[in-house]
Amino acid sequence: MTKKHLSPLPRLLVEDAVRMALKEDLGRAGDITTDAIIAPDARIRAVIRARRAGRIAGLDLAQSAFGMLDENISFERCVNDGEDAGAGEDVVRISGLARAVLSAERVALNYLGHMSGIATMTRELVALTKGTKAQICDTRKTTPGLRLFEKYAVKAGGGANHRFGLDDAVLIKDNHIAAAGGIASAIGAARANAGHMVKVEVEVDTLEQLDLALGCDVDAVLLDNMDPATLAEAVRRIDGKALAEASGGVNAATVAGIAASGVDLISVGALTHSAPVLDLGLDF
Amino acid sequence: MTKKHLSPLPRLLVEDAVRMALKEDLGRAGDITTDAIIAPDARIRAVIRARRAGRIAGLDLAQSAFGMLDENISFERCVNDGEDAGAGEDVVRISGLARAVLSAERVALNYLGHMSGIATMTRELVALTKGTKAQICDTRKTTPGLRLFEKYAVKAGGGANHRFGLDDAVLIKDNHIAAAGGIASAIGAARANAGHMVKVEVEVDTLEQLDLALGCDVDAVLLDNMDPATLAEAVRRIDGKALAEASGGVNAATVAGIAASGVDLISVGALTHSAPVLDLGLDF
Amino acid sequence: MTKKHLSPLPRLLVEDAVRMALKEDLGRAGDITTDAIIAPDARIRAVIRARRAGRIAGLDLAQSAFGMLDENISFERCVNDGEDAGAGEDVVRISGLARAVLSAERVALNYLGHMSGIATMTRELVALTKGTKAQICDTRKTTPGLRLFEKYAVKAGGGANHRFGLDDAVLIKDNHIAAAGGIASAIGAARANAGHMVKVEVEVDTLEQLDLALGCDVDAVLLDNMDPATLAEAVRRIDGKALAEASGGVNAATVAGIAASGVDLISVGALTHSAPVLDLGLDF
Amino acid sequence: MTKKHLSPLPRLLVEDAVRMALKEDLGRAGDITTDAIIAPDARIRAVIRARRAGRIAGLDLAQSAFGMLDENISFERCVNDGEDAGAGEDVVRISGLARAVLSAERVALNYLGHMSGIATMTRELVALTKGTKAQICDTRKTTPGLRLFEKYAVKAGGGANHRFGLDDAVLIKDNHIAAAGGIASAIGAARANAGHMVKVEVEVDTLEQLDLALGCDVDAVLLDNMDPATLAEAVRRIDGKALAEASGGVNAATVAGIAASGVDLISVGALTHSAPVLDLGLDF
Amino acid sequence: MTKKHLSPLPRLLVEDAVRMALKEDLGRAGDITTDAIIAPDARIRAVIRARRAGRIAGLDLAQSAFGMLDENISFERCVNDGEDAGAGEDVVRISGLARAVLSAERVALNYLGHMSGIATMTRELVALTKGTKAQICDTRKTTPGLRLFEKYAVKAGGGANHRFGLDDAVLIKDNHIAAAGGIASAIGAARANAGHMVKVEVEVDTLEQLDLALGCDVDAVLLDNMDPATLAEAVRRIDGKALAEASGGVNAATVAGIAASGVDLISVGALTHSAPVLDLGLDF
Amino acid sequence: MTKKHLSPLPRLLVEDAVRMALKEDLGRAGDITTDAIIAPDARIRAVIRARRAGRIAGLDLAQSAFGMLDENISFERCVNDGEDAGAGEDVVRISGLARAVLSAERVALNYLGHMSGIATMTRELVALTKGTKAQICDTRKTTPGLRLFEKYAVKAGGGANHRFGLDDAVLIKDNHIAAAGGIASAIGAARANAGHMVKVEVEVDTLEQLDLALGCDVDAVLLDNMDPATLAEAVRRIDGKALAEASGGVNAATVAGIAASGVDLISVGALTHSAPVLDLGLDF
Repeated sequence: MTKKHLSPLPRLLVEDAVRMALKEDLGRAGDITTDAIIAPDARIRAVIRARRAGRIAGLDLAQSAFGMLDENISFERCVNDGEDAGAGEDVVRISGLARAVLSAERVALNYLGHMSGIATMTRELVALTKGTKAQICDTRKTTPGLRLFEKYAVKAGGGANHRFGLDDAVLIKDNHIAAAGGIASAIGAARANAGHMVKVEVEVDTLEQLDLALGCDVDAVLLDNMDPATLAEAVRRIDGKALAEASGGVNAATVAGIAASGVDLISVGALTHSAPVLDLGLDF
Repeated sequence: MTKKHLSPLPRLLVEDAVRMALKEDLGRAGDITTDAIIAPDARIRAVIRARRAGRIAGLDLAQSAFGMLDENISFERCVNDGEDAGAGEDVVRISGLARAVLSAERVALNYLGHMSGIATMTRELVALTKGTKAQICDTRKTTPGLRLFEKYAVKAGGGANHRFGLDDAVLIKDNHIAAAGGIASAIGAARANAGHMVKVEVEVDTLEQLDLALGCDVDAVLLDNMDPATLAEAVRRIDGKALAEASGGVNAATVAGIAASGVDLISVGALTHSAPVLDLGLDF
Repeated sequence: MTKKHLSPLPRLLVEDAVRMALKEDLGRAGDITTDAIIAPDARIRAVIRARRAGRIAGLDLAQSAFGMLDENISFERCVNDGEDAGAGEDVVRISGLARAVLSAERVALNYLGHMSGIATMTRELVALTKGTKAQICDTRKTTPGLRLFEKYAVKAGGGANHRFGLDDAVLIKDNHIAAAGGIASAIGAARANAGHMVKVEVEVDTLEQLDLALGCDVDAVLLDNMDPATLAEAVRRIDGKALAEASGGVNAATVAGIAASGVDLISVGALTHSAPVLDLGLDF
Repeated sequence: MTKKHLSPLPRLLVEDAVRMALKEDLGRAGDITTDAIIAPDARIRAVIRARRAGRIAGLDLAQSAFGMLDENISFERCVNDGEDAGAGEDVVRISGLARAVLSAERVALNYLGHMSGIATMTRELVALTKGTKAQICDTRKTTPGLRLFEKYAVKAGGGANHRFGLDDAVLIKDNHIAAAGGIASAIGAARANAGHMVKVEVEVDTLEQLDLALGCDVDAVLLDNMDPATLAEAVRRIDGKALAEASGGVNAATVAGIAASGVDLISVGALTHSAPVLDLGLDF
Repeated sequence: MTKKHLSPLPRLLVEDAVRMALKEDLGRAGDITTDAIIAPDARIRAVIRARRAGRIAGLDLAQSAFGMLDENISFERCVNDGEDAGAGEDVVRISGLARAVLSAERVALNYLGHMSGIATMTRELVALTKGTKAQICDTRKTTPGLRLFEKYAVKAGGGANHRFGLDDAVLIKDNHIAAAGGIASAIGAARANAGHMVKVEVEVDTLEQLDLALGCDVDAVLLDNMDPATLAEAVRRIDGKALAEASGGVNAATVAGIAASGVDLISVGALTHSAPVLDLGLDF
Repeated sequence: MTKKHLSPLPRLLVEDAVRMALKEDLGRAGDITTDAIIAPDARIRAVIRARRAGRIAGLDLAQSAFGMLDENISFERCVNDGEDAGAGEDVVRISGLARAVLSAERVALNYLGHMSGIATMTRELVALTKGTKAQICDTRKTTPGLRLFEKYAVKAGGGANHRFGLDDAVLIKDNHIAAAGGIASAIGAARANAGHMVKVEVEVDTLEQLDLALGCDVDAVLLDNMDPATLAEAVRRIDGKALAEASGGVNAATVAGIAASGVDLISVGALTHSAPVLDLGLDF
C-alpha cells in the first residue's frame, strides 16, 4: 500500500451529511407526490448513468441516501469512486422500494454530480501536468458544509489536499506579514506558537520576498501569481529546501506551463468553487 | 409593494448556517496562523471588491460571519443583494478587529462568491429573455444544505423559485405516471391526497401526453426537452389553462428561442449546480 | 391508488422525535425504578388496549419508542393507523424485554394517545359532514414541535391538511390587507413574489371583501366567521372560481350547518389544540 | 420567600424551544406572505387579549418568539404568569416591526394558549379542593418535548409537580411488584439501588397492598382508583407515615370528594393531556 | 434482585457520547495514518489489558466506539463493569477490521481508563469503610458532559450516587440560608416550592446549626468539615430522624475515622475530579 | 509578537461547551433549591479564590457560565489564564444576580478547576526541565469532549500541543509498521497519501528502528520508553534531521533526566488524564 489510494470517507460523517440533506428535501411533509401515487410495496429497478464522460466520486453518499429510506436496497457499483465512466455508461444499478428510490434520487444525484464534477475537473488538470512533478491540489475555497466531501473528490480526481481548515497548518499571507512587521517575525511567531506537528507555509509575491522566506524555517512557500519563468527561478532558489506551491491564474490553458516550472504543487480554487456538475441521470 | 422585491433571509437560518461554516473552518484549534501573529486588539480596514462584474447575493451571510467573531464589526454595504457590482468596484467596506476579519474572511467569501455566482448566471439568462413573459426559475438540483441560500440567490438574479422541496408542491414525473397507470390516475391520486393549498404540476414529453394532462385538473405542465416549435404549439394548446414550464437544454444560446415560444417559466438546473463562483476578493 | 390513503410518516423524522422524547423522560440517570427491580433479561407480554372507542394514529411512533430500547421487540398491530378501535379492544400486542417495555411505555402512549385523540375528534366532525362536499381540515394552531404528527393524525381521522407552515402557501389576513392598502394590492404583491407553485388564499370577513377578492387571481378564499346563510351566498358568488373555506365557530353542533352551505373546506383549530387524549392503556 | 411562588423558566431552555418552534413554522423559505406584502421597516402595535377568562402561563415563551425576530420588540405584560385574565382583558401589549409580530404570532400563541389552558384547568381543580390539604399535581402524561413547560403551567395554575421523568424519583407500579415477587422486595431493590436523595413511592390498588407497603420504607403511596371512602380509610391507616396520593377518575365532579378524604395529593393526567387551549387572540 | 447491582447505561446516551468523541478525534479528514497504511479489509486481534490492578467501568462505551467503526466487531469481555482486573490481566479480547480497531482505540481507552480510574478510587475508599454503615458517594464536581458516566463509575466502584443535577433534589447551602434569613425559612421555602417527590438536604457547619435543622422537616443533613468526634455527636443528635452525610477533607487517610462516626454517607468530590486514569493498554 | 503567547479560545466553541454543561446540571427543572429560596432580583458579590497555589486556565469558560445566566454579570479577573495564583489569592471577583451566581457556580468551577489542574501539573514539569531545550507536550489521551480545552490548559501551563486529532498529522505506531511490512513502506504510504501540509512522525522502540526511520523522510520520531542514555544516543543519531520526542514513564522524578538527553519534546499523557483538580472555591 505504498502508493496513493482513495480511502473511504468516515461513515459517521457521511451519514450525518445525508440525513441533513434528506431532511432538507423532505421538509415537514415528505415526498407528497410519491406518497400519493406509488404503492408502499412497489419495487423498482433503476440505473445511475453518466450522460457525459467523467471521473466518479461520492458513491458512499449516494448509497447512504437510498439506504436511509430502504435499508434493504441493492446498490451495485459498476464504476468505483476514483474511476472514470464513459458517456452513457452505467455507474450504479439499483433495486429496491420504488418510494425510496424516487424520494432519495435527487439527494443522491446532487451529491454524486457535484463531487464527480470536482473529480472530473481535477482529473483534467492532472492529465495536463503529466510528466511533471507537480501535484494539483485544492484550497479552502469550498462550499460551506461540504469541505470534507469536496476534498475527497479532489483526491478521487487524482489531486492532493491542501490544509482542511484554519487549524491544521499555518499559512502566512501578506496581511499577517504586514501585521508582524516582516516575514521573519511572522514566521517566528508562528513557530513559537504552533505545535511541533504543524507545518508552516508562507505566501510570497516576489523573488525578494522568497529570499527572505528562505532565510527562515519554512516548510513550504506559496508562490502567488507568478509567471512560469519567475516560478522556475523561484524553484531554482528554493532548491528543495521547502515545498514550492504555485497559485493564481491556473486553468486548462496555463497549467502545463506552470507545472513545467518545476513546482511541487499547483493549488486551484476553481476545483471546488467553480467545477460544473457531472451530468448523471437516474433511468428506470 | 406590489412588485417583486427581495426579502431578507430569515436571520435564524442565516446564523445557523454561518455558525456551522465557521466551525468547519476553525476546526478544533481555531485560526492558528492569525492567533500566532496578530495581536488580539489590532484593528484593520478592508474592502470586499468584485474582481469581475456580477450580481451580488449573500451579504447577510458574509456580515454574520464577521459579526460572529467581532460583534462590533462595521460592515458598510456599497452594493446590496440583488444589485450589480462592476469589475473592481467596492462591494463592502469593513472595519474591526484584525483577527476577526482574517479568520472569517474565507467563510464570508465562500458564501458570497457562491451565491453571487448563481445570481450572476441567473441575471444573464433573465436578460436574454427580456421582452418575453418567461421567468427563469430554479430546480431542486441544489447543493446539499444550501437550498435556501441558492434559491435566494436566484431571486437576487431576477429569477423565480420553483418548489423548495418534495413536500411543498406535487410534481408528477414519468415514473409516477407509469406506476399509476396513466396521467389521469396519477393526477387523481395526487389531488386526492395532497392538501387544497398544494399545486400539482405534471411533466410531459410529448404533445399527446400534454393533451391527456390538459384533460385533468393540473396547475402547471412541465414541457420536458421540447424544441421551440413544439413548445409554441404546446403553449397554444394550453391556452392559459395551466402554467407552461419549459425544461431541458437551457443555456445562453438556447434560452431566447425557448422564451419566444410563449412559455411562462424556464427552469434551469445549471443555475444552482454549475454556476461558477463570482470572483470577489478581500483587500486591505 | 387514485383515492385517499394514509402514507407512513417519514422514518427519519419519526426516529428523531422518539429519540428526543425518550431522552426527555429518561433524563440523566434513566428509569431508576425499572433498573432497580426488573432483571435485564426478563421478558414480558403486554397489550395496548383502547379504554374508549376511537380512531387510532401514531403507531409508528409507539413502535419506534419500544424498538429503540429493544431492537428485537415484537409489535403486532391489531388495528392500523386510520382505523377505529372499539372500547376495550386490543390495538397492539407487544412482546419483548420487560425493561424496554416498561421504560418506553409512557413515551409510546403519550404519542399514541395524543395523536389518536386528534384523529378521533376529526373523525367525529367528518362523520357529521357526510353527504356534503366539505372536507374537515386543520390549521397552524398546533403544539410546537408536533406539527407533522398532528397533521398526520388529522389525515388518519379522515380530514385534510391545510398548509404546513408559513412557507408553503400564501394566506393573506386582514393585517396584510391593511398594510398593503387593499385586497388587490396584497394579492398582487403575493403573486409577484411567491413562486409559481405556491397557492394564494385570502381571508375575507364580508361579502363585499369577497367580491373584491374574486376580482383578483386567488386560489382560495377563507370565509371567516360567517353564518351558514352568508356562507351559502358566498359559495354562490364564488361559483367554482376559487376554493371556499369556512373557518370560525366550528364544533359538533355547528359543523353540519356549515357544511350544508356548500363550502369546500372547513378548518378547525380545535382538532390540534384542544382534542382530549384518547384513553389507551398498557395491560400486562 | 417561605411561601409558594412561581420561578421563571430557565432562559436557555426557553430559547431552545422557541427557536425550534419558529423553525418548524418558518420552514425553508420563511413567512412568504408577510415578506411579500409588509415593508421591512413597517411597525405595528398589537394586543394579546383573552377571549375567555383563564389563568395565564407561558409569557416568557411568547416574548422570546417575538424577540427572536425583532430584538427591540416592546412586550408589556398586563397580566403575569400565574395570574388570571378576564374575558376580553389585555394580557400583553406589543409594539415592534410588523414583520416580526406577524411571523411570530402563531408560535407565541401556540405556546401561550396551550400552557394557559393547562393552568386554567389546574386552577379550576385547585379551587374545587379549597379548604382541604390536598394539592393537585401533574403526571408524566405530557406532550413529548413539552414536559418542562407543561409542568410549569401546572404550577402557574396553583398545582404541584410530580416527578419530571423516570430518573428523579422511584415509582413502583404493579408490574414492578409482580416482577420483584412482592411489594417488600420491590421496595427493597429500589432502596438498595437508588441514591439517598431519591424518594420512593409505591402504587397500591387495595388496602391490603397498602398495609404491606406501610410495613416497608416508603415515602409516598399512590392510591389508585379508590373511592373516597376507601381513600379515607387509607389515609387513616397511613397516619402521616407516608404521603398519600390519590389517582384515577379525577375530574371536576369528583375532585372535591376525593380531596375530602384527607389525601395529600391528587394527581391528574388530564391537566397535561386533555386541557383545551385557552382562547387568546392577537388584535391590531 | 433486592440487593445492589449495576444497571447498564442507557444505550441512547452511550451512543450519543461515543459518536461525539469519535467525531472529536476523527476531525474533518479521519484517521489519516491508518487510512494511508492499513488495507481496508485487513483484520486484527487485540486485547485490552490492565497495566495496573483496578476496578473496571465503561465497557459499553468502549464497545460502542469499536462497533461504530465496524458493526461486526467481536468484543469479548473477560471482566465486567464493576469487577476487578489484576495487573496484566486481559479485560477485553477484540477481533475485527484493523482500521476500526486502530481508529477507535484512543476513544475507547479514554472512556474506559477515565471511568475505571474513578471506579478504582471509589473501591479503595469503600474498602476502607468496610464494617461501617457509611456509603461512599459522589458530588456534582464532575467533568462537564460526563456526569452520567462518572456517576455510573462510582456505582461500579461500590459507591452510591448523590443527586445528578440541580433539579432532582434540594441541597441548601450557607448562602441559601443567609438569603432566606435562617435555616427554618430556607427549608420552609424549599418545601413549599419543591414537589412532593423531592428530598431536602441542608448543609450545616456546626452542631448549633444542626439542632436548628433538626427542628425542621429535612430528609438529610450534610455535615460539612467536621472532625470525627463532632460527627459522632451529630449522628447522636440526628438519631435516625434524617440521613447523616459527612463531607470535606475525605481521603484514604481520614475516611475510616469519618466512617466510624456512624454517618450514613461520605461524599467525596475527588472521586470524579481527581481520580487518576486506570492504566489500560491495547496490545496486538 | 514573536514569542509564545496564549490566544483566547474560539468564542463559538466556548459557548457551545458551556451551554451543554449548564443544561447537564440544570436538567429539566432547573436549580430548584435556588429558585425556591433566593429572590429573583437579589444581588450578590463573590470571589473565586485559589485554596492552593496553581496556574490558572479556563476563565473564559467560567465567565461564560455566569454570563449565560446573567448577561450583566461583572466578572473581574485578578489573575489571567496562564498566570499563577497563590494559595488564598483571589482569582476573580464577581458581582451580579444571586440566582445566576449560585446556579452557575458548579459549572464554572468544574471547568476552571479541571483546566487549572492541568495547567498546574504542566507548569511543574516545565519548571523541572528549565535550561533544557525540551518542551513538555500533551497527547490524545484527553477526556472525551474536552480536548480543545485541555490542550489550551497545557499551553497555559507553558507546555506545547501535539496533534489535536487523528486527522491533522500522521503518527505511525508499531501496528502500522507491522501492517505495512516495515518502517520504510509505512512512511512511504503515509507520504503518498497525506497532503503536503501534513507532518509525519514515526514511533520507534529501539535505536535500530530509529536508524531505519532516519533513512526515510520523517519530520519527527517518537522515542518510546527509552532511558535517558538511550535517548541521548538517539538524539546524537538524529542530529537535527528530525524532531526528537520522548514518551513513556514521564513524571516529576524522571522528567529532568529525560530532558537532559537533549530531546526536543517530552509528551505526557498524565497531563490530561490524571491531573488532579486545582482546588478553587467560591466565597461570598
